[in-house]
Amino acid sequence: MAEKTEKKVILVSNDDGIRSEGILKLASALKKAGTVYIVAPDRERSAASHSLTLHRPLRVEEVGKRMYAVDGTPTDCVTLAVNGILPVRPDIVVSGINKGGNLGEDVSYSGTVSAAMEGTLLGIPSIAFSLAKREAFDFGPASEFALKLVRFVFKKGLPKDTLLNVNIPPVKRIKGYRITRQGKRFFTDVVVEKVDPRGKKYYWIGGSMERWVGGEDADYFAISKGYVSITPIHLDMTNMSSMQELKKWKI
Amino acid sequence: MAEKTEKKVILVSNDDGIRSEGILKLASALKKAGTVYIVAPDRERSAASHSLTLHRPLRVEEVGKRMYAVDGTPTDCVTLAVNGILPVRPDIVVSGINKGGNLGEDVSYSGTVSAAMEGTLLGIPSIAFSLAKREAFDFGPASEFALKLVRFVFKKGLPKDTLLNVNIPPVKRIKGYRITRQGKRFFTDVVVEKVDPRGKKYYWIGGSMERWVGGEDADYFAISKGYVSITPIHLDMTNMSSMQELKKWKI
Repeated sequence: MAEKTEKKVILVSNDDGIRSEGILKLASALKKAGTVYIVAPDRERSAASHSLTLHRPLRVEEVGKRMYAVDGTPTDCVTLAVNGILPVRPDIVVSGINKGGNLGEDVSYSGTVSAAMEGTLLGIPSIAFSLAKREAFDFGPASEFALKLVRFVFKKGLPKDTLLNVNIPPVKRIKGYRITRQGKRFFTDVVVEKVDPRGKKYYWIGGSMERWVGGEDADYFAISKGYVSITPIHLDMTNMSSMQELKKWKI
Repeated sequence: MAEKTEKKVILVSNDDGIRSEGILKLASALKKAGTVYIVAPDRERSAASHSLTLHRPLRVEEVGKRMYAVDGTPTDCVTLAVNGILPVRPDIVVSGINKGGNLGEDVSYSGTVSAAMEGTLLGIPSIAFSLAKREAFDFGPASEFALKLVRFVFKKGLPKDTLLNVNIPPVKRIKGYRITRQGKRFFTDVVVEKVDPRGKKYYWIGGSMERWVGGEDADYFAISKGYVSITPIHLDMTNMSSMQELKKWKI
């Protein structure tokens, strides 16, 4: 006799690497919602963005039960998992929990969000989780919320071609969530120019000075008030309102 | 006595690398519109996406007059150029000309487009150029069009926080352009699984099977009809129409 409900298959990835506490806590929590496979980079791949490795082969190492380390980017991991490693197609792709928030334009640099983008491009509902903190990470509240949201998405589904970018505030108890839009900040990359021990100049891209702008429906605003921020993200980057303006051009 | 009009400063970058014919032809054409600086990756960085190198220092080599090779990504090149290498802030960032189109969701993987994204984030008008061809590249018509468009943008400016993603059709004479929106395709990455000479398994991410969908205002449609496609792209990836739907959720 067939089971009443088939067990859901969950693919977990990240950009902090397979040994990161964030992914292990997330995977552990999600086991209550289905069969969890971890396919993640073998090392940290922060700011890897949506890059794909095309110029060389990729190696996959089975490092535990349903746990695979890939010597590539988060995007590589998701496409390899779905098109090669997993015995079945996952019902959901969950990325994170990232050490640090992915707010505003971070979305376009973030490996965490890109893993969820790749899931979305492959037609699988996808969610990215990031803990908006800089140190002393406690992934407990975020993992609990992730389990709750994944269960909800299993019931409700997601809007077409849309992933959820979820940021968790640095609080002990989550008081609620807000549906938000991607915020915006003014930022300046700080580039450090130095001289190496052999007298040669080098550059190092540092953090960025930032100042947030935008309204009360922005992602960073929800976080600043102690709420989880859930932003629906799609991959259509067309500035529709500019299209009309540009159509008047005579180049 | 000051000059009547100050000469414009143009930063050129790409993801095919500084030795690529596409960037040299582009830079050469743009010299008619201002002082051109080339800051580009020292090797091919296709599918580098919007990734930033944060975990190691970057080296810059002056390889010619106003020509700098960087051992990093297209995004690294633009931020380093603006925040370190160039003596003045550029008036425009121009990326390309890429060998191959950047249509539809390619925008999120493309190093060419990402260089223009970085320019936009730094508050500089930015344009990405790609030649929608697979081989036997002739960058002549594309370079001519690039010069025309750059001159136009110097006069007119660009909509706020918006870059232009320009794709050039594989034709000898350009018959015109269309203002388009980002197209969409169904795609499946092809992952090849093989065994190396030492008997170990490896994976290689291949091309993707594609089928375009969407209306007559889509980027790929313009190209298929022999027109240049100009898509206004912004970095706000919020799916605004989904926000209302999600606000009804009770997680």
